[in-house]
Amino acid sequence: MQKLLLTHCSALVPDGETGYALLDPAFIGIEDDTIVSVGASEPAGDWTKKDMHGALLIPGLVNGHTHAAMTLLRSRGSGLPLDRWLNEAIFPIEDRMLREDMAAGNALAQLEMLRTGTTAYSDMYYNLDTEAELCLQSGMKVNLGRAVTSFDPDEPAASSSRVRESLALFDDWHGKANGRIRVDFSIHAEYTCTERMAREFAALGAARGARMHLHLSETAREHAACKAKYGKTPAEWFRDLGVFDLPTAAAHCVFAEDGDLAIFGAYGVSPVHNPSSNLKLGSGVMRLKTMLDKGLCVGLGTDGAASNDNLDMLEEMHLAALLHNGVLRDPTAIRPTDVLRMATRNGALLQGRPDTGALEPGKKADIVAIDLDAPHLVPAFDPLALLVYSAQGADVRMTMVDGRILYENGEYFTLDADRIRFDVQKALGRLYR
Amino acid sequence: MQKLLLTHCSALVPDGETGYALLDPAFIGIEDDTIVSVGASEPAGDWTKKDMHGALLIPGLVNGHTHAAMTLLRSRGSGLPLDRWLNEAIFPIEDRMLREDMAAGNALAQLEMLRTGTTAYSDMYYNLDTEAELCLQSGMKVNLGRAVTSFDPDEPAASSSRVRESLALFDDWHGKANGRIRVDFSIHAEYTCTERMAREFAALGAARGARMHLHLSETAREHAACKAKYGKTPAEWFRDLGVFDLPTAAAHCVFAEDGDLAIFGAYGVSPVHNPSSNLKLGSGVMRLKTMLDKGLCVGLGTDGAASNDNLDMLEEMHLAALLHNGVLRDPTAIRPTDVLRMATRNGALLQGRPDTGALEPGKKADIVAIDLDAPHLVPAFDPLALLVYSAQGADVRMTMVDGRILYENGEYFTLDADRIRFDVQKALGRLYR
Repeated sequence: MQKLLLTHCSALVPDGETGYALLDPAFIGIEDDTIVSVGASEPAGDWTKKDMHGALLIPGLVNGHTHAAMTLLRSRGSGLPLDRWLNEAIFPIEDRMLREDMAAGNALAQLEMLRTGTTAYSDMYYNLDTEAELCLQSGMKVNLGRAVTSFDPDEPAASSSRVRESLALFDDWHGKANGRIRVDFSIHAEYTCTERMAREFAALGAARGARMHLHLSETAREHAACKAKYGKTPAEWFRDLGVFDLPTAAAHCVFAEDGDLAIFGAYGVSPVHNPSSNLKLGSGVMRLKTMLDKGLCVGLGTDGAASNDNLDMLEEMHLAALLHNGVLRDPTAIRPTDVLRMATRNGALLQGRPDTGALEPGKKADIVAIDLDAPHLVPAFDPLALLVYSAQGADVRMTMVDGRILYENGEYFTLDADRIRFDVQKALGRLYR
Repeated sequence: MQKLLLTHCSALVPDGETGYALLDPAFIGIEDDTIVSVGASEPAGDWTKKDMHGALLIPGLVNGHTHAAMTLLRSRGSGLPLDRWLNEAIFPIEDRMLREDMAAGNALAQLEMLRTGTTAYSDMYYNLDTEAELCLQSGMKVNLGRAVTSFDPDEPAASSSRVRESLALFDDWHGKANGRIRVDFSIHAEYTCTERMAREFAALGAARGARMHLHLSETAREHAACKAKYGKTPAEWFRDLGVFDLPTAAAHCVFAEDGDLAIFGAYGVSPVHNPSSNLKLGSGVMRLKTMLDKGLCVGLGTDGAASNDNLDMLEEMHLAALLHNGVLRDPTAIRPTDVLRMATRNGALLQGRPDTGALEPGKKADIVAIDLDAPHLVPAFDPLALLVYSAQGADVRMTMVDGRILYENGEYFTLDADRIRFDVQKALGRLYR
């Protein structure tokens, strides 16, 4: 059994339910995959010591909503309006993507995520068994959601190939790899699903004790169209069909109304904020401060690389911290502590992983080391503010999941970056020929 | 004389008045400090060749508004409301800053700027002769503006020590170092200056053919207070006092009204957009799209590191590209080409440097190489979109000013990073004891 002590570092540790305190110096003891001690002095015992050379340790970042394979569509159709972007730049390529293409895109995404400090992510796409296999190898944590759509009002869930793929994924992979791989049920969105499908699919998920991952009220148009069609908001629609009986992560929620936020509170729905994507696609600005004030467990995500255009959670944290203060004209609206909580503890909760998301004894050792040495991180009066306002993805020096170092100083220990690049170029050759 | 040819790279070159085209492959020939050839094939002649290993070359980034020495105040008072931030976190420290502290803060700023691709910046602060000396050594381009304030309505410009410092700076340094060092006249802002001082100081500047650098309509409160006090907007106030008779860079302009934009157009005032700072301090969102639609020469800046909290122009470009699309709910509002132009050509123009800001023959060789090799920059369908939406400061591999490489692959060739860090720690010890 590994007995590892991280030394010569500081750490952002929980301070109450929602805050953080700086522990400096910090000594973090890890046994096997679990943090067993966090303290300001060296604990007794027989440890293998690892000198962290002055780094700031933070909990692993949780990307609460992405489409990993879409790294292959990065930069496609930038500047097009949404409908042309989807129809001209995205859908024709997605239509051609084979399993091996998606596998390459997912692996490229993991290279990027690991070097920018992401330890776990919630993915919504299809052909996800290849991604489960990738996570077996890479050591990352993932919540896989095979997005279900249906346009035929009479199609029963039982006869949908998408539902069958989703169920098979759940049965084959949920809880595997020491719990690192989880499978969520996923409905793509209200506007791409029928009432019957949503109701029956949710019931299947509830019977399995699964969680739900969906898109909700991303654009004004989609939100208004749902109200016109059903006389209710997308949140009301999902609630009434029993979807929110499953613990749900709802991406975007840009146009969620006050009544919708009350539903989120009552049903424990976690909105996932995707500021880069919402801004780039011209969707709008989610009401983050209101949601946090209401005590919702809001997560943070990058969305796919086609609408971001990267998977860098540090940049997403930066944006979440700045955006709302400016739009609300209130420099105190969103605090650095809110943003770190969204990207770690809240992300862990919305993934159904209460055993991670914070640097404290008993949690899994999902740990990221931030190099504070670069000129843009000097002076270091307030490491939490530095992390949120000044740092960039490249400041991540080490990414550890379940006590295992997956990335450090430019080197990947479980993924073959050269092979992945080769596979990506092969996939690109097929897709864009 | 140096005769250098950059090879094995691509480049973003001007395409018409406002656009960019990708030249791939690109061969950029440099004689001494000037670009002499830009082409898709190797030019004849006897060149020293430099293999750029697949990098994307872009014009050097111009930070149109900053306070470099405020790196020493990075992260100070994050989350405080504006008045408490200034009065509790910023002013007491600034009050204690000695010349040597500022010199250390400026050098730290240059380390950060060079490694994130900035070749020129417009600084507003005081004790700027030390910064001129630093630029002699470092090779960076700077427009220095000694901020003038006055609170006594009868104080003549001629008897102000701030004005005298400004005139001496101009006489000693303007145009020095092969034109790399320029001195602007600077009025801090309407709310910190009297009518008499603004009028007389502007006349002194006009007589010298100087440019002006000031803050304008940064906050709603300042803008409204000016209208209440003078019955005119800050832009009208400056115009009426003759300040805009000097070519002017006006930082922030968040609350500039339609009439103010007409004044900017008529007088050739360049607004400088500082999205990070405006968001973080809760000031608001500048009307960038309207300004660009009106043909204004809008620049881009980071503001000081105390309100950003870094000097990373790539991040500022990213934010400028995303923010307005989201707030206006229009994914086509701001295009990557707009943002690159703001950060390069427009920046060069507002600094009074028409001889730089683009990769074309006859311009000074201010060139930045972006490493496209990292996973977050694959695939590279659209290098301009990658630069604006996906890249981060750490992707800068080389920064060249006037044909001289100042930074490459983590190494500084004109600055002693270790010495600067030592000086910074000494300054911090004095300031925060």
